[in-house]
Amino acid sequence: MHHRKRIEIVVERVRADDVTDLLDRLGATGWTILPVLSGRGRRGVRLGGDLSGVLDNVVIVCIASEAVTARVLDASDELLGARPAIVSITDCTVLRADHF
Amino acid sequence: MHHRKRIEIVVERVRADDVTDLLDRLGATGWTILPVLSGRGRRGVRLGGDLSGVLDNVVIVCIASEAVTARVLDASDELLGARPAIVSITDCTVLRADHF
Amino acid sequence: MHHRKRIEIVVERVRADDVTDLLDRLGATGWTILPVLSGRGRRGVRLGGDLSGVLDNVVIVCIASEAVTARVLDASDELLGARPAIVSITDCTVLRADHF
Repeated sequence: MHHRKRIEIVVERVRADDVTDLLDRLGATGWTILPVLSGRGRRGVRLGGDLSGVLDNVVIVCIASEAVTARVLDASDELLGARPAIVSITDCTVLRADHF
Repeated sequence: MHHRKRIEIVVERVRADDVTDLLDRLGATGWTILPVLSGRGRRGVRLGGDLSGVLDNVVIVCIASEAVTARVLDASDELLGARPAIVSITDCTVLRADHF
Repeated sequence: MHHRKRIEIVVERVRADDVTDLLDRLGATGWTILPVLSGRGRRGVRLGGDLSGVLDNVVIVCIASEAVTARVLDASDELLGARPAIVSITDCTVLRADHF
């Protein structure tokens, strides 16, 4: 097993590309985007399922190396430019680092 | 980076409000609700997508301070009253604690 | 609170049963499957929502004991046979181990 960081970013769906483009540019080898039903944050409650989808949030999960994670943190100004509701980072291990 | 807890609660969709109301009352600054396709737990397999949605589960993710997390654990009887399938807690760090 | 492992597996939806069958056989007491909107990995970008759903990924989350987790890792060849995009494992604690 190999140590990695699990970066989890809650962000507006319309700004998700800004985040994944940044992750790509900083060397992330992959990411996964999950839908959100609803949420509450500094800007109040958001319900998913509006017809436009404009207000929907998504969760972006990125398993990244220490080096990539450090670059993401160094680029926090740019990351925060996408106005994420939250950015949390957890230690994890991954199976077959050569594979992923 | 600032230390937080990532609380993850799998619960029936119809009981999600009970959980988020509790989180709000205990001082959580936010939470995110994710849809679930299916699951297996003590009460057997649950498939999502039934027309009523009554049997659907959701995942509630709450990034909370140590203090709020301690209050959630102190209120575990009330939390368990919502009959969560599982409550798991992970250490995490967050970007810009002042922001979130 | 009781120590557990949170196993998170991103895998094609059509292969999710292979993974959950394995988890069941190895003694997991439960798991939850979340839908994925899109993702990028070694095999390029995948967009969800195609009519067939064949290319969709899902996220399987399994909170497991150390013993079950060790068995999953011992069975990594079989697990990798389902061609997961990623398998990550995080330490967590759970509420009421007797309950879950």
